[in-house]
Amino acid sequence: MRHVRTIDWVDGAIEMIDQTRLPDELVTLRITTVDELIAAIRRLAVRGAPALGVAGALGVVLARGDQEAIARLRAARPTAVNLAWAVDRVAGLPPAKALRAALRIRDDDIAACVAMGERGADLLEGDRLRIMTVCNTGGLACVERGTALGVVQTLHERGRLAEVLALETRPLLQGARLTTWELARMGAPHRLVVDSAGPYLLARGGVDAVLIGADRIAANGDVANKVGSYALALGAERAGVPFIVVAPESTVDAGTPTGEHIEIEDRGAEEVVSVRGVATAPEGTRAANPAFDVTPHDLVTAIVTESRVIRP
Amino acid sequence: MRHVRTIDWVDGAIEMIDQTRLPDELVTLRITTVDELIAAIRRLAVRGAPALGVAGALGVVLARGDQEAIARLRAARPTAVNLAWAVDRVAGLPPAKALRAALRIRDDDIAACVAMGERGADLLEGDRLRIMTVCNTGGLACVERGTALGVVQTLHERGRLAEVLALETRPLLQGARLTTWELARMGAPHRLVVDSAGPYLLARGGVDAVLIGADRIAANGDVANKVGSYALALGAERAGVPFIVVAPESTVDAGTPTGEHIEIEDRGAEEVVSVRGVATAPEGTRAANPAFDVTPHDLVTAIVTESRVIRP
Repeated sequence: MRHVRTIDWVDGAIEMIDQTRLPDELVTLRITTVDELIAAIRRLAVRGAPALGVAGALGVVLARGDQEAIARLRAARPTAVNLAWAVDRVAGLPPAKALRAALRIRDDDIAACVAMGERGADLLEGDRLRIMTVCNTGGLACVERGTALGVVQTLHERGRLAEVLALETRPLLQGARLTTWELARMGAPHRLVVDSAGPYLLARGGVDAVLIGADRIAANGDVANKVGSYALALGAERAGVPFIVVAPESTVDAGTPTGEHIEIEDRGAEEVVSVRGVATAPEGTRAANPAFDVTPHDLVTAIVTESRVIRP
Repeated sequence: MRHVRTIDWVDGAIEMIDQTRLPDELVTLRITTVDELIAAIRRLAVRGAPALGVAGALGVVLARGDQEAIARLRAARPTAVNLAWAVDRVAGLPPAKALRAALRIRDDDIAACVAMGERGADLLEGDRLRIMTVCNTGGLACVERGTALGVVQTLHERGRLAEVLALETRPLLQGARLTTWELARMGAPHRLVVDSAGPYLLARGGVDAVLIGADRIAANGDVANKVGSYALALGAERAGVPFIVVAPESTVDAGTPTGEHIEIEDRGAEEVVSVRGVATAPEGTRAANPAFDVTPHDLVTAIVTESRVIRP
């Protein structure tokens, strides 16, 4: 498996995998301006809360002190807290220190994913584990390895993984396009399922844990994550399956008291009425398209970060 | 709105709308042999439990006493009980009586849909109702009007419908392709949503009822229906929203004691790893594809048939 960082700083610019082209082609984008970066974030060329944090930090370096550009970057996607968090960490610093701080955020993310993988794998019991997950929380959502899928990778490296059931994750199919691609590269057995089948397959039995990432975790433990997470949490509770959130500490937002205070991005109809450019509904069909949902803390078994296990 | 029966007997053959071509084109198939009919059923040119019942009954007429062909027809799709029920009702009769019995099943379906629409609309309280539904349960799932979507049509005719939230229904997108098409034809306000957003939108509030159809209802009230129904039932329970099943009496299977005894058809990987012919996952990706799920009776608020309201 060729080692590729999802996002990095190379020779004075940001380089990132264009995730909209996967799994068809592995294309690297070179980004030299904040406007290019905002466009890449909006069209999800880079996505995943931790990777958005690194993108925000490196974007501040590209901004060279342009506060208006920094403000636009900070607001490019509203639900993931990591983007605003990382921008704020770097925005006040002088240029030389800004780059050093941004690279520190990148390196911290790499180390945090290693730690989350180990802590999450330690938390789970059993030897032939079947894991269900939604969206993409692998190396493509971070710099390397990932959050929930980083735990899967660690389980696989330890010989404890039987199979991953990956939800396809409509509308943008991050599970079908990205998670399967990463699982194939790591040689982990997996099957793809449509999102609505997740809760039912939990009820049928045989799944040992649901592992998901997070875009923002409120102070009370409510979790905003890719839409479909809440349905899985309901299914996990009814089936008695642990529902575990894996996310770095930067995702925990002490300034947001509960999930009700989290802004949920609606990304418009186009993503819903088509799939990879092919129309699925009659022309003119309207849609509701919440990109995220909120799982109340009482449905969350544990939150695993790089430094602790929180039981809401 | 041009009146079209989904399936009918015309000049010695079955005529049916080819639902795989919707919403792009309205194409009528003319079917003269049981093998053509089985192929049409398998590729879902005709689908929906009540329509499958009419197809089965008319198919027995095409079989002209060929018991081997009748047995294959009866088993063409395992989950919907209506197919086997209708085949059995007609299979033992002499040719002249067989056609009469099959046309009776067609006419009974039309009358049952009218009755279900009225009973369902009477059951719901309120004037500006927002309804969530999954799959297609409209005229296209029956001969005319439909089951759950027949209730929606009656509400709309009575001026009591504010909006329908239609789940797209992966993998085959019956909600996106067929339900939106029917709602547009009846002039009913509607928005399309991805399946995984259903439970979350219920939690956000503003939905007055979930209405679904059924492929088989066990004696204890467990309901087999399109995959995704169970997730909606969990979401409805948590949100305190009525979860109502609308289906003809022929869907109630006294011979199946509980949902655990219902065979759930797995339709293979191809439907999951592609959308309308476009690949969504890396080549060779495996999939689990349960086409239906089972909602336990404790999550069902009411079952509305043409003759009664059952509260499991």
